[in-house]
Amino acid sequence: MHHFFVKPKDINDGIITITGKDVKHITRSLRLDISDEISVADGESNKYLTEIIDISEEFVRAKIIKEFEVKVESNIEVTLVQGLPKSKKMDLITQKCTELGIREIIPVDTKRTVVNLKPKKAERRQQRWQKIAREAAKQSGRAIIPIIKDLMTFKDILSLASKYDLVLMPWEDEQSTKLKEVLTDNQEVNKIMIIIGPEGGFSKQEVELAKEEGIKPVTLGPRILRTETAGIATLSMILYELGDLG
Amino acid sequence: MHHFFVKPKDINDGIITITGKDVKHITRSLRLDISDEISVADGESNKYLTEIIDISEEFVRAKIIKEFEVKVESNIEVTLVQGLPKSKKMDLITQKCTELGIREIIPVDTKRTVVNLKPKKAERRQQRWQKIAREAAKQSGRAIIPIIKDLMTFKDILSLASKYDLVLMPWEDEQSTKLKEVLTDNQEVNKIMIIIGPEGGFSKQEVELAKEEGIKPVTLGPRILRTETAGIATLSMILYELGDLG
Repeated sequence: MHHFFVKPKDINDGIITITGKDVKHITRSLRLDISDEISVADGESNKYLTEIIDISEEFVRAKIIKEFEVKVESNIEVTLVQGLPKSKKMDLITQKCTELGIREIIPVDTKRTVVNLKPKKAERRQQRWQKIAREAAKQSGRAIIPIIKDLMTFKDILSLASKYDLVLMPWEDEQSTKLKEVLTDNQEVNKIMIIIGPEGGFSKQEVELAKEEGIKPVTLGPRILRTETAGIATLSMILYELGDLG
Repeated sequence: MHHFFVKPKDINDGIITITGKDVKHITRSLRLDISDEISVADGESNKYLTEIIDISEEFVRAKIIKEFEVKVESNIEVTLVQGLPKSKKMDLITQKCTELGIREIIPVDTKRTVVNLKPKKAERRQQRWQKIAREAAKQSGRAIIPIIKDLMTFKDILSLASKYDLVLMPWEDEQSTKLKEVLTDNQEVNKIMIIIGPEGGFSKQEVELAKEEGIKPVTLGPRILRTETAGIATLSMILYELGDLG
């Protein structure tokens, strides 16, 4: 079934009003019509089965038939902090992590980040990634659209870290502390931050700064994962161990 | 450290002889020289720290300093059977699953596979994917290169299934049996097959045929994953629960 997002204000007395680009998508591309069913989420974890009751050039109106009982969002809220990678890797990370269940992605400028985004370009990129997240959220049937934040510095991230129950920093030079041990020892956490380095990894200094903030580097195992694989795999493992994946 | 593969026959009395394209790569691209260290694997789970002792146009010779003690291959041998997807998704699946630790990938033609590979093209594609697996194995420091098999039919796969300790078939219409339950109940398995459908998923008939062979469909959770995400996530979860990932 096709899935769309609206704002909570677009839902009144059991009637949902869809406006904007989705109208053309529903009527022209998908050729849906009166009495066809679509699923609609309000971006705040509520997801409904609805039936189209009215179509115009400007809007599509749908009546709520029932609220979906299947919970599509995990209780575990994961934020991915991603060292800005080269080329289109951030597109891939955004799409895959959205499908898997990420809540928020923060691109971060680190010592070994080679991409230099000027403010205007950074803004366009953020908009692009937000759009990818929206499309992936629709396609995977999510109840919320993950938020893609503006590019931050590594120091910004460290000052945010205390707001999370658990901060995980996969690092290839870490030998002893395993992700699995940390997750097994932290079954009661709710808000988790993952910090992944760019292609060249974190500098020793960045790891030291993180340690000073009480962040523990972890190993993901004996094989070296590319930066875009590390986030996808870590998120899969966290939501498997503590959340609703698998 | 840079990592290369040789055949077991290329290792004699503690001296490794590297020939072929890697020679140019080592000497021209990487500009390595006598006494530089490289890591070398024989493709049969042995991985060595070596020192270059001799360089010519035809070969590079390196002396084994020690065998790496860190085991880079999991005891859990996973085969991914992947419903042939569109465009370059198979490239992505091959690269990511190799990094994560797959042993074998078998592309399969299913009812809803839309790509029609003629024999000659299928052969070229297999060679392409095998090359991607080789490069990813080098980059992630693996001791073996995963094998990419020729395209098979769904029936071929079903007749192979009995050779595995556990066969997992993620299916979006499955509601009750969770991957996690199956993995928790099968802690002693060694050889696992994952069967992932193409973009359109498996047909009901294919699922019935699989069930007749004793294969149980499983759910990966409430969010719908794209075909290329399903294999990467399932492999991550299997190697997390039973293997050495995380």
